[in-house]
Amino acid sequence: MGILIRDVRLLDSAENERTDIYITGDHISGIGREPRGFSADEVIDGSGKTLMPGLINCHTHAYMSLMRNYADDLPFHEWLFGRITPVEDALTPEEAYWGNMLSVIEMIRTGTTTFVDMQMFPKMSVRACADSGMRAVITRGLVGSDRNDEGGRARIAQALEEMEYGREIGANVDFALGPHAIYTCGEDFLRYVGELAAEKDLSLNIHLAETEYEYNTCLSEHGCTPVEYLSGLGFFDRRILLAHCVFLSDGDYSLLRNPNVHVVTNPASNMKLANGFAPVARMLKEGVNVALGTDSAASNNSLNMFTEMRLLTMAQKGAAKDALVLTADETVRIATENGAEAIGRDDLGSIGVGKTADLILIDENCPNLRPVYNMKAACAYSATGYEVSDVLIGGKLVMRNRNLTTIDEEKVYFETGRIAEKYRPGRAVPGK
Amino acid sequence: MGILIRDVRLLDSAENERTDIYITGDHISGIGREPRGFSADEVIDGSGKTLMPGLINCHTHAYMSLMRNYADDLPFHEWLFGRITPVEDALTPEEAYWGNMLSVIEMIRTGTTTFVDMQMFPKMSVRACADSGMRAVITRGLVGSDRNDEGGRARIAQALEEMEYGREIGANVDFALGPHAIYTCGEDFLRYVGELAAEKDLSLNIHLAETEYEYNTCLSEHGCTPVEYLSGLGFFDRRILLAHCVFLSDGDYSLLRNPNVHVVTNPASNMKLANGFAPVARMLKEGVNVALGTDSAASNNSLNMFTEMRLLTMAQKGAAKDALVLTADETVRIATENGAEAIGRDDLGSIGVGKTADLILIDENCPNLRPVYNMKAACAYSATGYEVSDVLIGGKLVMRNRNLTTIDEEKVYFETGRIAEKYRPGRAVPGK
Repeated sequence: MGILIRDVRLLDSAENERTDIYITGDHISGIGREPRGFSADEVIDGSGKTLMPGLINCHTHAYMSLMRNYADDLPFHEWLFGRITPVEDALTPEEAYWGNMLSVIEMIRTGTTTFVDMQMFPKMSVRACADSGMRAVITRGLVGSDRNDEGGRARIAQALEEMEYGREIGANVDFALGPHAIYTCGEDFLRYVGELAAEKDLSLNIHLAETEYEYNTCLSEHGCTPVEYLSGLGFFDRRILLAHCVFLSDGDYSLLRNPNVHVVTNPASNMKLANGFAPVARMLKEGVNVALGTDSAASNNSLNMFTEMRLLTMAQKGAAKDALVLTADETVRIATENGAEAIGRDDLGSIGVGKTADLILIDENCPNLRPVYNMKAACAYSATGYEVSDVLIGGKLVMRNRNLTTIDEEKVYFETGRIAEKYRPGRAVPGK
Repeated sequence: MGILIRDVRLLDSAENERTDIYITGDHISGIGREPRGFSADEVIDGSGKTLMPGLINCHTHAYMSLMRNYADDLPFHEWLFGRITPVEDALTPEEAYWGNMLSVIEMIRTGTTTFVDMQMFPKMSVRACADSGMRAVITRGLVGSDRNDEGGRARIAQALEEMEYGREIGANVDFALGPHAIYTCGEDFLRYVGELAAEKDLSLNIHLAETEYEYNTCLSEHGCTPVEYLSGLGFFDRRILLAHCVFLSDGDYSLLRNPNVHVVTNPASNMKLANGFAPVARMLKEGVNVALGTDSAASNNSLNMFTEMRLLTMAQKGAAKDALVLTADETVRIATENGAEAIGRDDLGSIGVGKTADLILIDENCPNLRPVYNMKAACAYSATGYEVSDVLIGGKLVMRNRNLTTIDEEKVYFETGRIAEKYRPGRAVPGK
């Protein structure tokens, strides 16, 4: 299987310089020069288009698109425990599957090719990825009081079972362990999950230091910051994604400056739930790897990495009162290369011969991208995501000329609409 | 000329309630009930669509789309005087016309039906509106040292001439006087413009309290805040739009709480140029009318009122650490009704029988708007603007099924591309 993208602009290239990209199987086999023995099954006209790496959404909960615009303008705890959790508790796995598919549609359409998911419906994220061709790192959200907590152990068993399932059906998925947060997991349970990660050689994915309440509670209960607490449990001895990190002490930065540790910032969610602005500019300056996530559509309320990039750089400049922080270059890097580094996939997040072909084409003939002076600035400041015309994941075209090739969108809209009727605010949340 | 929009959801309506909208000439002649003698020349299927008032962008500089993504990640003064002004000084009126047309394309495509423009190329904004059917309030930017300043008088003469021209060619345009700012106009010149506004019964449009430097300079030069200074010159005795108002004293709010005074907040521009967050939540609480603007594409970098709404509410919640400020309802009102109030057009910004038919249809079959629980939240938090499928201005369809009916887009992209080549960074800015 060979794909040739002819006469395309690369995001990094000088003005008006255009080249040809050759894709063989799942990887880029040539840039500007046809590799030996190449034959094109498909030729894509790249004129008027810019090619960039697919975006990597390092934190979301894909099933929660079912709760998009369901509960807004509320403080964090009322939003989460008063409105969102009751629906989560009532959702069926089949409903979660359709929520996942809705999310995958939005992500592909807006140029995301990999997402890191914390979910609670075993196998449903895997199935959505297998059915759509989407790439993901899937983590079953784990909560529990201690290592003997039956619910906690059952969730861990589901997580491990799901990994088998993912390998069996051959989806584009990796797995990690996802203890939910330090305020929903007891210390002994966290230690147990940490031991299991070491035993199975798995990465970790956790929410950390998202709210001031969490930060202050950790200080009073454990006498240290959330970052210090987690570090003290040995969690930073292996690859870990820390979602949020809005509340940090001066001492936390040196702990985060660790090749195993990757912070995932979620600006929309942090702003909308009134947690404020994560100190991203400072983290970068201190040498911490920062990736980007949208969090769920229940707190964002979209899964669009282009609008997330825009919000990130704007909010950082505004909060720091410094127009030079989070430049367009840095912002794009956070959403691509830094995300690849966070998930340990140096074959993703950049364009080069031998790299995996997770690529997106941006249609330059959109009024908000014109005239074309600087496509990186256009991506960070002007794009809405819907300029993306074509998406390849692992060398497979999952969107071609804005048509999805693997998903029946109407069916997904119908099913998610049906589910929304069941949970519509004002009605009693039905039991399972 | 009659248009029937059948079976459409109104933004305000209860779930799944749908109605028919009748448009006769330039206004809405019926909602849910066919007016006597109505005949439809065109029927629009509104199923799967939501109807809302066209958005009102209360502050922009439309010609500046030519400088989109031209100079980013710079502090305010370096950006304005080092990079933008040299190009502005070199632009020809014909070039400005194409910049205006590019802006009009972006605005129509993203649901804006009226914009307030501060421009510097006489007649070019008027021509762009006449050619496209776009509605605008046009203000020629005025600078000058005192009432005898020749340049200042010439610009005023152009402004008055342009008003004649606008009336002659019958464009959808109103006019106001636009003294640029208190730091670019001398006090005597400001007084002169104020007298002229009174004599000609014209409204005013000015930048105010945008930067901390402007605020502090005003304090040291005039011994009062920018708001107090302008109020002291009698500028608040007639309708005035104040763009920005990022820096306010506690005493300023009572001066802004005046039925003549309308603040236009520009969150993207203020954040991107590192001026910070305007105290919008407080202004609303203090009873000040606040409208929304994008500022120019050189500092935004788009003219998209949907992404601007999102940025506004997110930034206010994040800065105030209060999830309850700037609700979705308030945010949509700011971009519609408050804008109409700012420009003194109570026939715009809302939907009702007798109102002018400046209306937009939103395609609900977009992944980021689904499922549909709350379309106002969808507009404020999830929409990117490109969900808009149809746009009516004064009862005229300027976009139908995402096709512009009045503008040759390819021509505009070609011309603006040609102009961009001339001014591309790294080349010497050519003389006029």
